[in-house]
Amino acid sequence: MDARRKIQLLRERPGRPSRAGAPPKGTLVAIGGHEDRVGDKHILRAVADRLGRDGKIVVFTVATEEPHALWEEYDSAFRALGVAHVDRLDIESREDASSDRAVRILDGAAGVFFTGGDQLKITSQIGDTPTYSRVREIFEQGGVVAGTSAGASVMSETMLVTNNTDASYVKSALLMAPGLGFASDMLIDQHFSERGRMARLIGAISQNPHVLGVGIDEDTALILEHARHFRVLGRGGVYVVDASRTTHSNVGEAKETLSRFGIAVHMLSQGDRFDLSTRTPSSHSAESMERVEAKLKREATGD
Amino acid sequence: MDARRKIQLLRERPGRPSRAGAPPKGTLVAIGGHEDRVGDKHILRAVADRLGRDGKIVVFTVATEEPHALWEEYDSAFRALGVAHVDRLDIESREDASSDRAVRILDGAAGVFFTGGDQLKITSQIGDTPTYSRVREIFEQGGVVAGTSAGASVMSETMLVTNNTDASYVKSALLMAPGLGFASDMLIDQHFSERGRMARLIGAISQNPHVLGVGIDEDTALILEHARHFRVLGRGGVYVVDASRTTHSNVGEAKETLSRFGIAVHMLSQGDRFDLSTRTPSSHSAESMERVEAKLKREATGD
Repeated sequence: MDARRKIQLLRERPGRPSRAGAPPKGTLVAIGGHEDRVGDKHILRAVADRLGRDGKIVVFTVATEEPHALWEEYDSAFRALGVAHVDRLDIESREDASSDRAVRILDGAAGVFFTGGDQLKITSQIGDTPTYSRVREIFEQGGVVAGTSAGASVMSETMLVTNNTDASYVKSALLMAPGLGFASDMLIDQHFSERGRMARLIGAISQNPHVLGVGIDEDTALILEHARHFRVLGRGGVYVVDASRTTHSNVGEAKETLSRFGIAVHMLSQGDRFDLSTRTPSSHSAESMERVEAKLKREATGD
Repeated sequence: MDARRKIQLLRERPGRPSRAGAPPKGTLVAIGGHEDRVGDKHILRAVADRLGRDGKIVVFTVATEEPHALWEEYDSAFRALGVAHVDRLDIESREDASSDRAVRILDGAAGVFFTGGDQLKITSQIGDTPTYSRVREIFEQGGVVAGTSAGASVMSETMLVTNNTDASYVKSALLMAPGLGFASDMLIDQHFSERGRMARLIGAISQNPHVLGVGIDEDTALILEHARHFRVLGRGGVYVVDASRTTHSNVGEAKETLSRFGIAVHMLSQGDRFDLSTRTPSSHSAESMERVEAKLKREATGD
C-alpha cells in the first residue's frame, strides 16, 4: 500500500489507547535510562532479539535535544547486535509526524525505540497523528515498542512530567499529562532509585489507585508481554507500588500533606515476574531470565 | 551530688541501650532536618514546651563542623521560645565527654538537643561515656531527647551512615553503625523525600525486618512518647516502612540486586499517629496536633 493511502486509512481509523479491543500482541520494553549501549548491551540485545529474523527497528529521536548523537549511538548498538534494518525517524513537528515520509519509514517495522529526553516532546509531536496510529498498529500486531528514560515514562496512559521529587506535599507538586498508553493501568517512572523518586510515585498513584506505580532503575527494563505480565531484566530493580488496598487516604481533604496507609511495595530484580491482573509478584532467578533471552535469540537467528 | 561523684556512679552503672528495664518515661523528638529556627519554629516550640516550667536544655554541637554558628542559632531560637536555661555542650573528644565539666553542664537538664552534622561524630565521641549515660538517665526519667538530621538518625539502635541512595544493589551499598538507641526497633532516616531515600531505607530494613524503617521529611518531626507510639508534627511527611509481613526476600542469596515482595508503606502527616507495638497508623487531623501542642504549652507555662 502506498504511503498516502496508508495515511488516509490511519486518519480514518486513528489508533487511540481507548479504542483497544483485543489485548495487543506486542511486547513493551520500558527501560529506566542509561542502559548499556557499548558493552554487553543486555537490554538492547533483548529488544533486538525480539524483532525476528531480518527485523527492522525505527529509532525515534523526537524527545532529545541531541538527536544526531543519540541516533548514531543506537544505530551502532543495534547494528552490532545484528539488527538487519535500523532506521531513524526524526520528527520536529506534527507535520513531520503526519507526513508520507514518516509512514514510509515505519513501513515493515518490527519494532520502534523511543530515546530519552523530554516526554512532552514525544506526546505533543506524535500524539494522535498517523505516526502514532501506525506505532499502535505495530504494537497490536505483535511488534516491539521500546523506550528509555522519557521514552519509558511516555508508555503510561498518564505520565509524570515534573522533576519535582519533593512530593510529600503532593497536592500541588505533581504535574501529569496523558501518555502514549501502551502500558495500561500503569504509571511508569524511570531513573528510579538513582533519583529517589519513590515519594513522587506514591503521590501520583495516591490520586488514583487503579493505576499501578512502576519505578525502573537505570540499566534495567521491564519486558511486558501481551499486556498481562512483565519480567525484569538488568542490573537494578523494578519497584511496584500498589495503593489498591490502602486503608486510609486524605487526598481530597484539606490537609496539605499526604497521608496514606497500607501501600504495598514490591522490589523486583532480574528474572522476577509480575502478574498485572492479580497484582502479584513471583520470584525467579536472574539466570532464568538469561535462559529466556538465549532461547529467544536462538529462535530469532534460527540457530 | 558533685560532678566527680556523679561520673564515678555513671562509670559504675553505665547507661546502655541493652540495659533498659522499664520503658523510658521520656519523649523523643526526631526531626528530619531544616526545621524552622527563625519563624514560627513550630517543631522547636514543641521541644521547648516539653521542658516544663524553668526547664533547662543542653544543645550538643558535637556532630557539626560549625558548632559556634549552629549554637548561636539554637540558643536564640530556644530563648525566643521562653526556655529559661539554654546551655551548650561542645564535645571534641571522648575526654570532653568523660569530663566533670560535661556532667556539670547536664546537671538538672530537662532535655538535650543534638544538631545535624555527622552522626558518626556523635556516636564515636559520646558512645559509652558518662555523658551518654547521663543523657540516657535524663531520657529514662522523663526528659526530652531531641535531634535533627544526623541528630535524628543517631537515635536509632542501628543507624545509616552512608550517603549512597543508589540502593537497589543493596548488598554492597549500605553502611550502618550502632546508634544511641533511644528509638528501639526503629531505623530513622532524615531529609527523606527531599533526598529520595526510600530505596536505601527499604534496603536497610530488608536486612532485618524486626526493625521498622522511619523516614522523616525536612521541617517535620516524630514525637515518640513512652517508647510506644509517635505522632507527626510539621510541614512534611513521615514514612513508615514495615517489612515484617514480606512474603519473599532474596537477601542472603547470590543475587546482586534486591528482591522483596509485600513491603507495607504508610505515609503519615501532621496529627497522624503510629502505634509501635501493633505497627498500625491512625489518622488524625493536623489541627488535633495543634491542640495537643497548645495544651502542653498551657501546662508548661501554667497559664
